[in-house]
Parts: sequence; C-alpha cells; structure tokens
Amino acid sequence: MAGMKLATLNDGSRDGQLAVVSRDLKTAHIADGIVPTLQAVLDDWAFIAPQLASLYEELNAGRTRRPFDFDPARCMAPLPRAGQWVDGPVQAQRADEEPQMVQGAGDDFLGPMEDIVLAHEEWGIDFETGIAVITGDVKMGATPDEANGQIRLLMLSNGVALRKLTGLQAKAAAGFSPVAVTPDELGDSWRGGKVHLPLRSTWNGRLAGQPDAGADMAVNFPRLIAHLCKTRKVRAGSIVGAGYTSIAASAPRKQANTASR
Amino acid sequence: MAGMKLATLNDGSRDGQLAVVSRDLKTAHIADGIVPTLQAVLDDWAFIAPQLASLYEELNAGRTRRPFDFDPARCMAPLPRAGQWVDGPVQAQRADEEPQMVQGAGDDFLGPMEDIVLAHEEWGIDFETGIAVITGDVKMGATPDEANGQIRLLMLSNGVALRKLTGLQAKAAAGFSPVAVTPDELGDSWRGGKVHLPLRSTWNGRLAGQPDAGADMAVNFPRLIAHLCKTRKVRAGSIVGAGYTSIAASAPRKQANTASR
Repeated sequence: MAGMKLATLNDGSRDGQLAVVSRDLKTAHIADGIVPTLQAVLDDWAFIAPQLASLYEELNAGRTRRPFDFDPARCMAPLPRAGQWVDGPVQAQRADEEPQMVQGAGDDFLGPMEDIVLAHEEWGIDFETGIAVITGDVKMGATPDEANGQIRLLMLSNGVALRKLTGLQAKAAAGFSPVAVTPDELGDSWRGGKVHLPLRSTWNGRLAGQPDAGADMAVNFPRLIAHLCKTRKVRAGSIVGAGYTSIAASAPRKQANTASR
Repeated sequence: MAGMKLATLNDGSRDGQLAVVSRDLKTAHIADGIVPTLQAVLDDWAFIAPQLASLYEELNAGRTRRPFDFDPARCMAPLPRAGQWVDGPVQAQRADEEPQMVQGAGDDFLGPMEDIVLAHEEWGIDFETGIAVITGDVKMGATPDEANGQIRLLMLSNGVALRKLTGLQAKAAAGFSPVAVTPDELGDSWRGGKVHLPLRSTWNGRLAGQPDAGADMAVNFPRLIAHLCKTRKVRAGSIVGAGYTSIAASAPRKQANTASR
C-alpha cells in the first residue's frame, strides 16, 4: 500500500472529522464517504486504509471533487483520545537496558496549535519533543518484528512535564502534530524502527533543540512496543511515544529575568 | 434522575452493544433505539442518561417489548476501552497523604467472565479487588465537590498485578463487573464519596478477602479525581479505581504444593 497523510479536523465533536492531507500539506479532503474518525480506521485498518490511500492519490493528482486548503489551526490531535498513551525518554537509555516507559492518560490530547493552559508557572513547566507511533492490534508476547508490522502511523508529540510535581500530576496533557503519516511516507528515513531525521523544536521562534531522532534513540519503536505487550495485548489506536530533548519553558526564563534585574 | 444499571454485550465489535439491566439483574434490554455504546452515553450524558433511565423503569415494571434474560457471560467490561484508567491502593494510604495513583492502559479490558491469560505463573500473579468509578468531564483544578458531581457510574474491578515484574509490565489487563450502576442505585451505601459495603473476593469458590469498601478507603473518590485533575482535564469515560485486598494467585499455591509433598 502506498503511504498517506491523515489529519483530524475540529468539528465540535470529541473524535473530530477525519481528513486526508496531500503529500505537500497544502490541501486536504474530508474522508466522510469512507470513515468518520481515525479510531474507526485503526479499528478496521486492512479494509479502510486502502480506500483512504486511493483518496490520497487522487488528492495528490488534483482529481478530488472537494479539496480545500489544509490549515493546521483547524486540527485536533490526529487521535483526539486514545485507549493508551505510553512514552519514555529514549535518549536517557542504553540500548541494552529494558525500556523505561510510563503510562499517561489518553482521554484528553491537545491539538497542534491549541494553547497549553496551566494554573501555575511555579510547577516548573518543561516541554518534551518526541516522536510517537500509533499501533494496530499487537498480540501479547509479540516479537519486535511482529510489533513493527503493526506500526500504522507516525506523529510528532509535545509533552508537557511539571518538574516540581510528582506522580501523575507531573504530566500535563500532551499535544500532537496536525498530521499523522504512514511510515512509508518517510521513505528511507524510516528504517530500523526509527525515524532518521533531525527533530527540531522551537520555542517562541528560537531553536530549542535538534536531536537526531534516529541516532539518539537507544531502543527502537518495535522494541518499545514488544516491551509493552509482554504481559498484555496492545490494541488498535494505542500511542507509543519516544521523548527526546526536554526543555524548561518556565524556570530558566525566570532565572534570566532575575539575572537581568 | 432515578438510577440505572448498564451493561455492554459482546456483539463482536470493539465497543460492544449497550444494554439496560433490571434492578434485580434478571433481565436486560438493548438500548439500540437510544444509543449504541456506553462511551456515547458518557459523551452526552445530560441528554442520553434520562432516556436510558426511562427504559430502566419500563424494564423494571415489565413493560418493555423485547426483554431477555441477563447473562453476565455475554458481557464485555461495561466500558471495553477507555481513554483513562488510573488506580491506586486506597488501603495502604493515610487520609492526610496525597493519593498514590498509577496510570494504566485503557485500550484492552477483560469482560467479567473472560479467562485471564498470562504466559508465565513465575511472574507472580496477584489479583486485586477494587471499586472503580466512571467519570464525566471534570475541569482542570476541580474541587472534590465538583468532581463528586461528575461521578457517573460505579463498577467492581479485578486488577492483575505481576509481582516479579517491574514498571508497566507489572500490570496485566484489568477486568470489570458485568454491570455498571449509577451511584443512587446503591442508596445509603453510597455516601461521603465511598461505597459503604463489604467487598467480597472469592478465588475458586473460596472467600479470599472482604474489606469494608467504605471504612477501609482512606481517600474518597471525589478526592482521588480532584488529585488527578489538578494539572489537566479529566474527560468523560475516564475510569478511576481504588484497589483493596491484593491476593496472590500463583506463588502461595506453589508453596502449598511444595509443603504438602
């Protein structure tokens, strides 16, 4: 199957409206003749994904009936809620270690351009750039190779950690890129279960970090998923993230202010 | 609004088919004229719950058109998947402590009578009896009182912990009771944000534990939810659990076998 790019438009509903986005990210087309939501695609991938891939090809060729300009500001997270959202700091690990992953809450994700609202800057607000995959069904005890075959889509993630808090309060709602892409959309940059591209983070227009998402990833995505499904199934629509650079968004600014006074 | 009992029947789909169950648990009625799934009810509770409550009253009065015998073996978990599943050991806490809660995966729950399949007894299989609430939308920073008003349904939970494993691998898929009930179904037993009833666990027919789910709960459900939504919203369909007795299902049996030889 050829690749494709997908996005979820904010139509006021909780799961949004699925759209196919052109390869150049300039135009999009509602998938309403095919399927309403991304979760519904993941629930029945083998049947529905080829239909979306056809729509994608038609959109790229300029042959769809109702294309419109693609606007990331209209997007929710590609999967606005998910049964599982688990991530871990892949840079802090060694390749021979067991992955250190943490379950998060999947009930409330932020859209790519949504404001990040938090009550107190004193909580110590960090943002964490990451790459996340959305899976299909993975059986309990699956090998990394088997897990690799169930990687459906890739996104960028924007985690928010609260340094001064502990436990589950230390993780605020995560945001995701406007578009989720199938691995083959990345061509040769997707190999060995990693994305071999620079992962650029900017903060108020300034470059804040640029790890190599491939070389800096100790444990690849198939191994992360295999770790996760050792003692349970992983079901379609699970999001598995790999966190890179963690950047302090609050404290350093305060320190800088103090220093300049 | 009067109370009601709800169950999700296994129809082969991932989210199942919602049914209303009679007060005496003897009969049930498909909710298909009203809503397909429990998540859809939670997504629009104020509009849909009263319609289900009417169906519940008709079912109890023997006035529905197509009632059928209720069979827990046909049930999935009331919410077969959820955007959030978080629980904590409420017995091990003091009332003045911050709740110790852990995020779990909500992508794959077991039905009430489904087999619990695990690869190795050597992992140290414990089962954990619990009570869980399903929430509506709770705003960030909600008080316990505000959180209390968003407790939609109550269930029993059967957690499975793997004592010899660490991190997220130590939690296998959780199972839930066949029926979820609104708090007012419990009458005076639901007060102070706790269920004041004995929580009986049996294992192969033998009573394995019977904590007092009220007296033995240090931090009540409204406080657990308020803890959870300090730094983020909690969205409709989140499951917040309180674990009581943890019972070893594998190692003690092996020890007993060894001792008897």
